[in-house]
Amino acid sequence: MAKVEHVDVWPGISVKELVEQFSHGGFQAYKLWKACRIFREMVEDQECTKFLGLAGALVPGGMRKVIVRMIRKHMVDVIVSTGGILTHDLIEAAGIQHVHAPEKYNDVKLRSEMLNRIYNVLLPNDGYVKLEKKLATILEKLPQKTMSSREFLEHLGRHVEDRESIIRAAYDENIKIFCPAIADSVLGFHIWMNTQFLKLRVNPILDQREMTAIAYESKKCGALFVGGGTSKHYIALAMQFSPRSLEYAIQITMDRPEHGGVSGATLSEAKSWGKVAEKAKTVEVICDATIALPIIVASNIL
Amino acid sequence: MAKVEHVDVWPGISVKELVEQFSHGGFQAYKLWKACRIFREMVEDQECTKFLGLAGALVPGGMRKVIVRMIRKHMVDVIVSTGGILTHDLIEAAGIQHVHAPEKYNDVKLRSEMLNRIYNVLLPNDGYVKLEKKLATILEKLPQKTMSSREFLEHLGRHVEDRESIIRAAYDENIKIFCPAIADSVLGFHIWMNTQFLKLRVNPILDQREMTAIAYESKKCGALFVGGGTSKHYIALAMQFSPRSLEYAIQITMDRPEHGGVSGATLSEAKSWGKVAEKAKTVEVICDATIALPIIVASNIL
Amino acid sequence: MAKVEHVDVWPGISVKELVEQFSHGGFQAYKLWKACRIFREMVEDQECTKFLGLAGALVPGGMRKVIVRMIRKHMVDVIVSTGGILTHDLIEAAGIQHVHAPEKYNDVKLRSEMLNRIYNVLLPNDGYVKLEKKLATILEKLPQKTMSSREFLEHLGRHVEDRESIIRAAYDENIKIFCPAIADSVLGFHIWMNTQFLKLRVNPILDQREMTAIAYESKKCGALFVGGGTSKHYIALAMQFSPRSLEYAIQITMDRPEHGGVSGATLSEAKSWGKVAEKAKTVEVICDATIALPIIVASNIL
Amino acid sequence: MAKVEHVDVWPGISVKELVEQFSHGGFQAYKLWKACRIFREMVEDQECTKFLGLAGALVPGGMRKVIVRMIRKHMVDVIVSTGGILTHDLIEAAGIQHVHAPEKYNDVKLRSEMLNRIYNVLLPNDGYVKLEKKLATILEKLPQKTMSSREFLEHLGRHVEDRESIIRAAYDENIKIFCPAIADSVLGFHIWMNTQFLKLRVNPILDQREMTAIAYESKKCGALFVGGGTSKHYIALAMQFSPRSLEYAIQITMDRPEHGGVSGATLSEAKSWGKVAEKAKTVEVICDATIALPIIVASNIL
Repeated sequence: MAKVEHVDVWPGISVKELVEQFSHGGFQAYKLWKACRIFREMVEDQECTKFLGLAGALVPGGMRKVIVRMIRKHMVDVIVSTGGILTHDLIEAAGIQHVHAPEKYNDVKLRSEMLNRIYNVLLPNDGYVKLEKKLATILEKLPQKTMSSREFLEHLGRHVEDRESIIRAAYDENIKIFCPAIADSVLGFHIWMNTQFLKLRVNPILDQREMTAIAYESKKCGALFVGGGTSKHYIALAMQFSPRSLEYAIQITMDRPEHGGVSGATLSEAKSWGKVAEKAKTVEVICDATIALPIIVASNIL
Repeated sequence: MAKVEHVDVWPGISVKELVEQFSHGGFQAYKLWKACRIFREMVEDQECTKFLGLAGALVPGGMRKVIVRMIRKHMVDVIVSTGGILTHDLIEAAGIQHVHAPEKYNDVKLRSEMLNRIYNVLLPNDGYVKLEKKLATILEKLPQKTMSSREFLEHLGRHVEDRESIIRAAYDENIKIFCPAIADSVLGFHIWMNTQFLKLRVNPILDQREMTAIAYESKKCGALFVGGGTSKHYIALAMQFSPRSLEYAIQITMDRPEHGGVSGATLSEAKSWGKVAEKAKTVEVICDATIALPIIVASNIL
Repeated sequence: MAKVEHVDVWPGISVKELVEQFSHGGFQAYKLWKACRIFREMVEDQECTKFLGLAGALVPGGMRKVIVRMIRKHMVDVIVSTGGILTHDLIEAAGIQHVHAPEKYNDVKLRSEMLNRIYNVLLPNDGYVKLEKKLATILEKLPQKTMSSREFLEHLGRHVEDRESIIRAAYDENIKIFCPAIADSVLGFHIWMNTQFLKLRVNPILDQREMTAIAYESKKCGALFVGGGTSKHYIALAMQFSPRSLEYAIQITMDRPEHGGVSGATLSEAKSWGKVAEKAKTVEVICDATIALPIIVASNIL
Repeated sequence: MAKVEHVDVWPGISVKELVEQFSHGGFQAYKLWKACRIFREMVEDQECTKFLGLAGALVPGGMRKVIVRMIRKHMVDVIVSTGGILTHDLIEAAGIQHVHAPEKYNDVKLRSEMLNRIYNVLLPNDGYVKLEKKLATILEKLPQKTMSSREFLEHLGRHVEDRESIIRAAYDENIKIFCPAIADSVLGFHIWMNTQFLKLRVNPILDQREMTAIAYESKKCGALFVGGGTSKHYIALAMQFSPRSLEYAIQITMDRPEHGGVSGATLSEAKSWGKVAEKAKTVEVICDATIALPIIVASNIL
């Protein structure tokens, strides 16, 4: 059995070197090293369709550039996202940035200043006003028909000018984005608002055809789950509904399994469902994604 | 300031008495007592529209009867649920029960026995087969038009024979169920499958009209959040989009706030968004819902 | 396999009945039912030496009466406690009670009011002043020699007048209390302070003889771990150092295993060490002790 | 207010650069950046006595070298450790290394192979045998008198040959190590065993004099808490017993505050006790120490 040789650090050590050092440690350092290694193997596997599940407030958390890097470098093929992440991405594309919360704050006072708090980050309410205007001008330019969320997001991406946007980058790079819970988001709200004037309709139930087809037509599948929720569940469902199972599965989460929720469920559990293959390469990293995700990407970026 | 008089117990102590004792303790016992008290106040407030957010595998977790009791006793007015919970409810309505996992299990072996694991509970895969058949016969009887998830679930409820079903009980008692993330569920999958033969369509984006209207038209609003995810977020969004804010808010969760996800976010944070009113009565109980929810209902049931 | 029949509740349901209902649920409800059952079996096992590990601020948390009930009813034989719990017990014995923190507080302001916060409970600093005086009068009456913590606590218990005290109850009922980390507590501090004037000495390393002897001489051993830390570890060490292993083991904790700490470590892990027997009856309940412990005691008290 | 500019990564990015990027993110990435910054400020503050609290199985977790680097570089002045960490350090000094657990293991089988599991790391039982022999030869060479744990560990360090040992490095560098819970460890057990033949005695209650004196005599105090337990509590107690309060406080933990335990308690709470100064620079990083600690040290090492 391999010995625990201990993690070492030195002046100027690179992230890639630190991750290599993590292989000499235990607990979550070791898991994070393993996640980096499996991610690399998945990315390099030409036969593998790579899914990326995105949940949690990753844009307020400062992960927008890291996600865009993954898209631009084609480290992933298919993204499943919450509506919130896409909404936050569009708000930034509309020119409003999130800001760091001050050390001391009062939520009632923040309310009076129209600053919406997300843990230690604030979303100026102005962002929603700008988003509404921006969307109103874009939505009328899109095909006036009923679309799946995936189709809608592709058309939307064409009209997002900000090249640092996740939706725009995915459009540019021909990466598909699915948003099964788009109805539960400000983006979904504005789609509904505009359906009062437009013929454009979005129905995420229609995504099922394409998502299932991707699973069926892939030789192999793999997934990086950043957080859980609908994004994780939807990718797993595609495996359940198809003859495929994930051959690679990496999960970054702070949720725990003991209360039975899908977000904290182990990848071993997913094997009982056939969502993850018996001999899949898997690892769960119990760590906030804002720390673990940049490390995984930094250690694999070329 | 009130003294901590210590929790006492005795032979034959009732749950209601234990909850009263919890007011003499600290930490989460005190929080649970407070949750019971706020819940009672909310239920007794005739002017208040009571929302119930349901997330996590509550049916496999054995919470079906407790939820049905809340519905039959009209402790809640509007339910927002994940698609998974409704799927599990329908599987049980179709005659397949969840089972307790054995002490020792092997996920690969469970797979070969077609037993899908959810922490310490198993869902026999047979349930999905029965569900598929059952839904096929029901869906063709429903209105062949485009519906919101709420409208669809009402029509569906009429055809569920099992009176112990959440969907059926809600239909009987005229309680609305919304399912914004229905696309991310086996139920959603079968709706899509059957749209290949039927004219029935379900689009959860259409729910926005009714959900927003409920918020606008309510004198007061309150919510019991069992878990987080889309169910919590969708109720909160209705507050964000309307002049209403929650005057009562109870959250049962095991998730933590530090990674910025909506599930673990505090109710204080929601005040900065105007989702929870400045002077709302609020409490978070950090406890598995399978323990806390039955205690809250038991201590308030008449 | 046993079916999940669902937890039911009704007006007037007793805690004992609720626990029975928990056997029809999943996740932590099921675990809590199992904990109650194993605890009963352990208590009724005449051959079993029952250890109780106490960690966390259980007295501020309002658990003093519940612990005293367990002692008076001889549900346990040997207690291992942190110094903090014993300090808090003595402060209450000296007449100062903990108080509930107000909804809104400011830690800097609390400091100016000499109110020490423990989550949602406050310990008036006056308690430390009273404790110091009380201890000064008691310590000079105790045997002026070097004692183990166990021996010291027995002598101390004789002089505690408050019959609701854990230390006093243990003395009355001839239940041993060990405190391996007594040096890390206000109680330990005052022992050291008084050694400047007295010949009384306490050395917790001397406890090893008696603790190991108990393990060696017991036919069977079992433990209820309330929290982790030194209390859990010290009981486990006694198993490691002796031919005994725990035949019953119940753990109540909110800590997680993934960072390798002893507090969140699973009982299965303890089998690899021989601390828990291969065929032991074990259960971990992931729940705040202020909720789970009163339920376990209430459902088993006669 | 500062904008969230998003974390960026690139090929060859150093750990120091990544930490700088973390300042452009939110949630725990931002907290980790802040921890690195406060740690640097503390280390560079010549007037500040730097405490390091060590808890959790940090040696099996692969943190031995990182801790030794902190000692050799005089990033800390006073260490408070659990007995377990020192025991593991001595086992490695005796020539037995921890090993990585295989992907699949069975705790009962590990028992039969005498491999003690600590999450995903194994401690060969042989280590305890070697430790016993080694200690027997060393203890007889030490001063045969009653010592505090601090004094004992200094004498012990002189006889540890392994220069990669924490205890040896601390001896070499004149860094004090306190172990208030030494009685709850294998090291404490062997001290007791040998007191049957030797006159050497160790009593951790005697440490109070020196620990309190350090607090009193320091101009300023600061602490890095790696995990909680007795190590965190003992440092905090020294502040409570003295006119000092921590001016810098960094806490790395995965524990949560809601159940009232000291390990998960916030640093704000510590202000109500006067353990942390009103205007102290503080941060809690909710992350496994095996990831966060190497990053903090790597980004500050010269």
